Amino acid sequence: MYKNSGTNLASLSPAEIKDWVGSFDTVLTDCDGVIWVDNNTLPQATDVINKFIENGKQLFFVTNNSTKTRPEFVTKAVKLGFNVGVDNIISTAWLAARYLKAKNFTKKVYVVGSTGITRELDAVGIRHIGIGPDVLQGTLAEAVHAFTPDPEVGAVIVGFDEHFSFVKMMKAASYLNNQEVIFIGTNTDERFPMPDCVIPGTGSIVNAVTTCAERPPTVMGKPNKHICDILQQEYKVDPERTLMIGDRCNTDILLGKNCGFKTLLVETGIHKAEDIEKWAQSEDEETRRLVPDVYAGKLGDLLPYL
Amino acid sequence: MYKNSGTNLASLSPAEIKDWVGSFDTVLTDCDGVIWVDNNTLPQATDVINKFIENGKQLFFVTNNSTKTRPEFVTKAVKLGFNVGVDNIISTAWLAARYLKAKNFTKKVYVVGSTGITRELDAVGIRHIGIGPDVLQGTLAEAVHAFTPDPEVGAVIVGFDEHFSFVKMMKAASYLNNQEVIFIGTNTDERFPMPDCVIPGTGSIVNAVTTCAERPPTVMGKPNKHICDILQQEYKVDPERTLMIGDRCNTDILLGKNCGFKTLLVETGIHKAEDIEKWAQSEDEETRRLVPDVYAGKLGDLLPYL
Repeated sequence: MYKNSGTNLASLSPAEIKDWVGSFDTVLTDCDGVIWVDNNTLPQATDVINKFIENGKQLFFVTNNSTKTRPEFVTKAVKLGFNVGVDNIISTAWLAARYLKAKNFTKKVYVVGSTGITRELDAVGIRHIGIGPDVLQGTLAEAVHAFTPDPEVGAVIVGFDEHFSFVKMMKAASYLNNQEVIFIGTNTDERFPMPDCVIPGTGSIVNAVTTCAERPPTVMGKPNKHICDILQQEYKVDPERTLMIGDRCNTDILLGKNCGFKTLLVETGIHKAEDIEKWAQSEDEETRRLVPDVYAGKLGDLLPYL
Repeated sequence: MYKNSGTNLASLSPAEIKDWVGSFDTVLTDCDGVIWVDNNTLPQATDVINKFIENGKQLFFVTNNSTKTRPEFVTKAVKLGFNVGVDNIISTAWLAARYLKAKNFTKKVYVVGSTGITRELDAVGIRHIGIGPDVLQGTLAEAVHAFTPDPEVGAVIVGFDEHFSFVKMMKAASYLNNQEVIFIGTNTDERFPMPDCVIPGTGSIVNAVTTCAERPPTVMGKPNKHICDILQQEYKVDPERTLMIGDRCNTDILLGKNCGFKTLLVETGIHKAEDIEKWAQSEDEETRRLVPDVYAGKLGDLLPYL
């Protein structure tokens, strides 16, 4: 229904919207720009999410943010009024830990990232090194000389790290020079534009390491299909009866497309109706894939139909 | 003569080699891996270079290294026995300063790099900020709050910087958010493999900034054709009578191809005869462009014919 059509929710009749809502049992939603912005919920977003759960839909928050553990996300969500628990959260730090655990990984991880990642590793009993500040002491030659690779390192995870440095880049690339060392990137979001500055996203850090390691990572986050495999394995989710909601088409909507989900864009974050219109006209098939099934001004617009 | 043929110098007769040497008036050569490795000259390389100069060939060292000024390169070269002066050196830091000067640039440059770059800017009277350590103080939110963009910044140069950090990435991307700010990358070399570690190249730093700036830089270094334009403007070089010598095909040889020069690969650095053989068989035209006209075990092999 409305597949890839970029249909405006406001153009549908109440009966059509109710039919559409009835066509999915599972709801995946992005967080920032969909249900909240920083620590403020978006209008009626809490009501819509809680109504989905009340109505028996299986619900997951799917976030590319690697700086929080699942329990930390739950704490934030509950504080903001969402009736969710850890099983409702799919975060990239958790996916990375779960990915290694599923491989019976017993070595150490060199982490370019924060406690969001290391606490998820701790939770599954995987050892790690690397987090926190690590800057050049003395000259580069001295740093090279002082670096003794830990022979127990068997994986490198790269996520968001505000302490990212040349020294960390050197260490990550050096470990990855051994082709048996697993390379995981939490996500590839390019950046977060702020009013007066640009905060680099994990994608910039991942690209720096990918370039000097001369090999690509396995990416955990949206739009990578990996998430869908886990949902099908662990929660028996039926892709055809699943809706993905997001504010960014090249991550959220594309995840939906990659997994065969229905898709809804809300205009409270990155992308808007005019972007969809432009993409719909594109000659390029990949660009046209960014068009969602349906779009709405905000998530709260669904509330009257739940 | 031997255009794109990947001919082994050792397979040619002395007369053929002398003819070939007579077919160029200008010689461009890479440094590391061709004439020296770190502070050690390669066998007979000094003699070959000095013989070229004695024989009246116009000679240029063309280096992607952005950590030294031209006078600093000359100091090193003279110490190692090469009879060269600043006019024989084309370095990416110098190219970047020259590029801005040619645009009558009067604002400030935010530099991700070293004194190799800032001294070249000083030499042409262009102001700059940014070099040296710049790491996160306190939290990311505090760093964002503390960052007051300098309204005089009109360009960002990204080169090799062992103090590269998340904070520098944030500042570079923030300046580049203004589309009028000029974005220069000195070069895109991915990395320098060492015996026990990998040193990230400028290309990894440039890719990090490119990702969060969401725009590409103008690249000064090999294989960018920009170098050829300057040689033609300033030194009246005739591409058809110019030889480019290098050890890395995706920078040195490709520069030669991009500029219509003759090309010689020496096997004392990155690429070898077996790489050429593989590329020559490729279905991909871009890959076949990596094949040089001629290859030799080392630069010194030319000495008997000069």
